[in-house]
Amino acid sequence: MAWHRHLITLTTDFGYRDPFVGIVKGVIAGINPAAQVIDLSHGIVPQDVMAAALLLRHSVSFFPRGTIHVAVVDPSVGTSRRCLLIESEANFLIGPDNGVLSLALGDKTPNQIVELSNPAYHRPAACSTFHGRDVFAPVAAYLSLGVAPAAFGESLDSIVRIEWPRAVKSKGGIAGKIIYIDHFGNLFTNIGHQDLSSLAADHLRVTLNGMVIHGLSANYVAGDNGDLIALINSWGLLEIAKFKDSAAQRCQAKIGDKVSVSVH
Amino acid sequence: MAWHRHLITLTTDFGYRDPFVGIVKGVIAGINPAAQVIDLSHGIVPQDVMAAALLLRHSVSFFPRGTIHVAVVDPSVGTSRRCLLIESEANFLIGPDNGVLSLALGDKTPNQIVELSNPAYHRPAACSTFHGRDVFAPVAAYLSLGVAPAAFGESLDSIVRIEWPRAVKSKGGIAGKIIYIDHFGNLFTNIGHQDLSSLAADHLRVTLNGMVIHGLSANYVAGDNGDLIALINSWGLLEIAKFKDSAAQRCQAKIGDKVSVSVH
Amino acid sequence: MAWHRHLITLTTDFGYRDPFVGIVKGVIAGINPAAQVIDLSHGIVPQDVMAAALLLRHSVSFFPRGTIHVAVVDPSVGTSRRCLLIESEANFLIGPDNGVLSLALGDKTPNQIVELSNPAYHRPAACSTFHGRDVFAPVAAYLSLGVAPAAFGESLDSIVRIEWPRAVKSKGGIAGKIIYIDHFGNLFTNIGHQDLSSLAADHLRVTLNGMVIHGLSANYVAGDNGDLIALINSWGLLEIAKFKDSAAQRCQAKIGDKVSVSVH
Repeated sequence: MAWHRHLITLTTDFGYRDPFVGIVKGVIAGINPAAQVIDLSHGIVPQDVMAAALLLRHSVSFFPRGTIHVAVVDPSVGTSRRCLLIESEANFLIGPDNGVLSLALGDKTPNQIVELSNPAYHRPAACSTFHGRDVFAPVAAYLSLGVAPAAFGESLDSIVRIEWPRAVKSKGGIAGKIIYIDHFGNLFTNIGHQDLSSLAADHLRVTLNGMVIHGLSANYVAGDNGDLIALINSWGLLEIAKFKDSAAQRCQAKIGDKVSVSVH
Repeated sequence: MAWHRHLITLTTDFGYRDPFVGIVKGVIAGINPAAQVIDLSHGIVPQDVMAAALLLRHSVSFFPRGTIHVAVVDPSVGTSRRCLLIESEANFLIGPDNGVLSLALGDKTPNQIVELSNPAYHRPAACSTFHGRDVFAPVAAYLSLGVAPAAFGESLDSIVRIEWPRAVKSKGGIAGKIIYIDHFGNLFTNIGHQDLSSLAADHLRVTLNGMVIHGLSANYVAGDNGDLIALINSWGLLEIAKFKDSAAQRCQAKIGDKVSVSVH
Repeated sequence: MAWHRHLITLTTDFGYRDPFVGIVKGVIAGINPAAQVIDLSHGIVPQDVMAAALLLRHSVSFFPRGTIHVAVVDPSVGTSRRCLLIESEANFLIGPDNGVLSLALGDKTPNQIVELSNPAYHRPAACSTFHGRDVFAPVAAYLSLGVAPAAFGESLDSIVRIEWPRAVKSKGGIAGKIIYIDHFGNLFTNIGHQDLSSLAADHLRVTLNGMVIHGLSANYVAGDNGDLIALINSWGLLEIAKFKDSAAQRCQAKIGDKVSVSVH
């Protein structure tokens, strides 16, 4: 690959007040002072592998080719679960083999999957509770220096995958659910814009927890009368929102709540 | 301008746990890998344009000349509200035309105001709900590469301005209010040190919610007896504080509460 | 020193929603655009000097030689308390002379201690409430440019030190306490792995708030039956944890609670 690999992103459940993220960056800087690190999120709910996998899936396409994405949501750290480096078409993914990297691959076959079995690229005497610091950070840093993926360990044929929770289409409409709630209280569903493309936007009816929304809006201001609105959001997903307010609170909604779309 | 434009700051209401800030940085890095991004705040209360405008007003002078400040508090994203690039004497301001940039200009006339109407510098197929990612980030990145402001769109003569809430001076004293509360619970007023310069510091009486403070203190330790204190803070504003404690809690104070200064 | 000093870390009680951290970074970038800044934590409980000192103690070893660590937890800002630059064997420490830097020194004698008395390296007209911006940030930035430590002021022989809360060993076992609780709710004690090395791991009995844990676990999964576990964590300290849960909540534990280790 000719393109530059200097960029590393971090997605973890480490939170913001502990020094763990800073320590990971210190380890990276000690190996490659020219690496640039971008925080994607450290606010993943502790141990929520699915949340991190979803977030990564919807973020990687906005980064330049060759970016190295590190995801550490890793309740099984220190057991026999494997540590992975995946080279896909456009970027690298590094993290534990628990599914956290799998949704970002989509339907594509990775170019290469490597188990991080070569301790030469780990911190000496890696501890069993913080592979983010002792395994994933140094591997990301060495990779950013141009070390070939194969140097980090043995090739693998498959990884642990988690299922992308697909919306179900039927004659009557689409059955989906809430998969992400952002800090504004906007409700992201697993129903994509392509799922809706064959339906007439003006005649859509979106139902959540007994509340009904008619039609798709172009922006948030369309809900300035205080009504809930539905729109296609910046991830290309159907979203339920409330102008200058929290749809999550208004709808008492939580991850997993059912959302249905029909045409009337 | 000869000075370097590599530095970009971000002020948003995106919060810290979602990947939106990281995505904005990914877009910038994809256009200008050498840009340096500093987070000013992502903790603006959602949709609080005034709070972001105040914060920007009191922060820009601490950054080097040529810094590019991007502010995205943008409830009307995707409507006909305009997107702006303002070149002032010492820096650049980028954001929606809703007043969020206006307080940072102070009384100065900007060198140039440009509407970001040239889609060549936006992400392709910009969405209508996330101009931070699709318009403001790429414009900031191209500007940091040296693209001339005029290339981004047409010149404008005026922008939406919000009023800086001025303190009112009278013979009896000064009538002001709380405009910002920091995370220590310190209460920032809109009364500046220059408003007080003609008054004898030792004889000042500051009143808030029925509580009275006598005199100005030089530092926080002056309140180590547990009393509320008043001082001139790091933004040059009159501040009400409590040593190792929250004045906001002690005074049950909130943004907008009246503060008066008199001489006794 | 031949090694590079371009890296600066920040540890403060400034929190995340105010612009103070961003302003500190703006001041640094204005002096040395090539400095790289890493946030260690800005979530120190306000004015908790001990917490910042402990965090620094357990973080500095993960950063490359020559890193400049700035710690600003500084309730006495603006009084006669001194401002320090300490050069130790492997790094630099900058902050107020209130003990916040002292635990990071361990038992080593610093190479050099300098009082930051030379105003040429401060911001002009430094204010009395924000030395992070006006003293510590510019000093860190000039130091990162290669200015010699002695240029910043006069040499000192000693500094204010706070006591590392040592665990007490006796014939019956070890008496320690909780010194840090991370955002997962894991309980860090002041009992180090070396304190335990002479004891048989399988026969250890750890007691906290009337609850008893038998033996040391190798990782978190060892507690997947829901029991509390004890392990040696990534700082080399005895930690009490609960798999995918908060030990702090389960044990109603807080900083300072007693932990005892015995052999049965």
